[in-house]
Amino acid sequence: MSDTLSAAVEIARDLIRCPSVTPVEGGALAFLDKLLTARGFTVERPVFSDEDTPDVENLFATIGSGAPHFVFAGHTDVVPAGQETEWQHGPFEGEISEGVLFGRGAVDMKGGIASFAAAALAFLDNHGDDFTGTISFLITGDEEGPAVNGTSKLLQWADEQGYKFDACIVGEPTNPDQLGDAIKVGRRGSLSGIVTVKGTQGHAAYPHLADNPIPGLMKLMTALDAVIFDDGNDRFQPTNLEIVTFDVGNTAFNVIPARAEARFNVRFNDEWSLDSLKLKIQEILGSAATEDLKWDIAFRRDGSDSFLTRDEVLIKALSEAVEAETGRCPELSTGGGTSDARFIKNYCPVVEFGLVGQTMHKIDECTPVKDLDELAAIYGRFLESYFASKPKG
Amino acid sequence: MSDTLSAAVEIARDLIRCPSVTPVEGGALAFLDKLLTARGFTVERPVFSDEDTPDVENLFATIGSGAPHFVFAGHTDVVPAGQETEWQHGPFEGEISEGVLFGRGAVDMKGGIASFAAAALAFLDNHGDDFTGTISFLITGDEEGPAVNGTSKLLQWADEQGYKFDACIVGEPTNPDQLGDAIKVGRRGSLSGIVTVKGTQGHAAYPHLADNPIPGLMKLMTALDAVIFDDGNDRFQPTNLEIVTFDVGNTAFNVIPARAEARFNVRFNDEWSLDSLKLKIQEILGSAATEDLKWDIAFRRDGSDSFLTRDEVLIKALSEAVEAETGRCPELSTGGGTSDARFIKNYCPVVEFGLVGQTMHKIDECTPVKDLDELAAIYGRFLESYFASKPKG
Repeated sequence: MSDTLSAAVEIARDLIRCPSVTPVEGGALAFLDKLLTARGFTVERPVFSDEDTPDVENLFATIGSGAPHFVFAGHTDVVPAGQETEWQHGPFEGEISEGVLFGRGAVDMKGGIASFAAAALAFLDNHGDDFTGTISFLITGDEEGPAVNGTSKLLQWADEQGYKFDACIVGEPTNPDQLGDAIKVGRRGSLSGIVTVKGTQGHAAYPHLADNPIPGLMKLMTALDAVIFDDGNDRFQPTNLEIVTFDVGNTAFNVIPARAEARFNVRFNDEWSLDSLKLKIQEILGSAATEDLKWDIAFRRDGSDSFLTRDEVLIKALSEAVEAETGRCPELSTGGGTSDARFIKNYCPVVEFGLVGQTMHKIDECTPVKDLDELAAIYGRFLESYFASKPKG
Repeated sequence: MSDTLSAAVEIARDLIRCPSVTPVEGGALAFLDKLLTARGFTVERPVFSDEDTPDVENLFATIGSGAPHFVFAGHTDVVPAGQETEWQHGPFEGEISEGVLFGRGAVDMKGGIASFAAAALAFLDNHGDDFTGTISFLITGDEEGPAVNGTSKLLQWADEQGYKFDACIVGEPTNPDQLGDAIKVGRRGSLSGIVTVKGTQGHAAYPHLADNPIPGLMKLMTALDAVIFDDGNDRFQPTNLEIVTFDVGNTAFNVIPARAEARFNVRFNDEWSLDSLKLKIQEILGSAATEDLKWDIAFRRDGSDSFLTRDEVLIKALSEAVEAETGRCPELSTGGGTSDARFIKNYCPVVEFGLVGQTMHKIDECTPVKDLDELAAIYGRFLESYFASKPKG
């Protein structure tokens, strides 16, 4: 049966069969290594380490040496399958049923990698010695996990090796409903913080001897939750703050606790920088706090600024390829969560386009096989257009 | 050296040397059993059991068969010592240093039991065959713990045996600063509850697909915290509500949680019953909740109504005894936390008077030995007066 499958579908199926739940490599990078080495790519698989987080293997594959240098970025690691018995098709089987390929990573994002690999190999086959640019794969095994030993370090490593990129597509599932819905051309920033109020522990029957921190923290967090940071703009959604947890952890009904803590996350647009947003939040809390309230805020260090990619050649080539293959004019979106594009944007213009995300992280994650082929066709058309239009260094 | 100690001090010291941390008997009840049996008391030591809580041993000792029937109530169990190395005097040594007896339970409330035992034995010695009333000890080993297998069941057991009481003193430490400060003649009621708000879990970057329960719960609890239930009256302090915990338990900054929960405790005076207070709280929450908020309240079943003891003979006899021995006119107080008096008040008039509470539950819990002797003198004077004034059935 496998001889009737397209290259994109076959690669996707083979990748799904590698159980590469973060941080386990699971054979997925080895499979890509073999596939790309056989077609002339130079492949390296650096392993990165850090404190308090597992070592993770990554892959960098490159072919050609001229300009422009286009890089496709993605990850082979997947989130856990959850209860495998709830899956109708095994999460690591790669079963195809009625034109649909099932398995963990089908859309997020082994399918995206497979479609690009098929497109790139076909493109190189067609052009042979005519091709004077460079195509690279920047693939991590640490996107779904802590993301400490992944794209961020792989970019730095590539930079140290002398690799400079002109443009990047991240193959994450960007389409809400149908292939062609949306290209992501930027992302909101993200800032997290912890607000703490200290009181004085005591017996619930003797409140005058204690100082309950909970009302004070509710006042601060209510004020924070009520802020309208902005109304959004033509590039970005409005900035939004969510209180993600509020914890005291007191198990005794007759005890007034000594401490209460709440955590929040802000997704913010380009009206704000990390610094201006931190100032604003400190101002709001300072205004809401009564003079004698013992409160504190600690911002997490993993905050990221928003970004917007303005590379017209990259965006035009991809948009036109999408429209030509799907008949749909993709929205240029900046919505949704963060991705590894937040690291890549510091090295080159980056956009994101991949499969339909509806089943990602869910039981019976799947993609129609025709989407894999269509995505491969879009990527192929993009490569033709991009390398034809870009000045050759 | 022990031959220079008074009976009260000697009994207190011997009780402290029994390591009776709840629910362990530790030899304390056996000690009392031996002491009282030797002086003619009939002693029983029923063990009570219940689900999910350890078996606990209790003691009931009685002498005489006529009216009136006076019962002294207390507990031999103690809270844990904590870090024993932080104690200057071993928590279970019963050391006396510069006129102060140290040890866990010195004031809460082995000292109180010792003073009453010394007083009762002296009283019986003095009266011999003249004594026509009844004196009992109702001593539990489960006051500091769950209080499930303690006084509540011991009272029911005594009732089933046919014992009827005319008056009770609980020997808990009632004096804030000095012996003679206060007799407790009632207690506020206590009502606890859990307020829950359900939302819809989701990604912090896609708040329109989720429903954050935290702001809704903060609104409900802020409304509850703002209520002025009453201003108190000449018998009781104002009713007071404390939010004792607020918990979500979400560890991920990028996740909007599905559920938030807060717990509260109300200490309420005789302007309220458990039922009227529950209604009031439900009204407040109902008014504060927006129409689409999915909230719920569950009241704990261990709520207790307030009570006020109005037995003039009991209160007068004790007040006069306190004043005669200390020169201080004790306040008739209803402040502070609950005690086992909340169970006893259903069987007979009950007041509470014991040692000075400052060191209770703390490192180096202690009492001046002179307080033990003074308390024994107060109890003795009370017994004389009470049995002289009460009609003999």
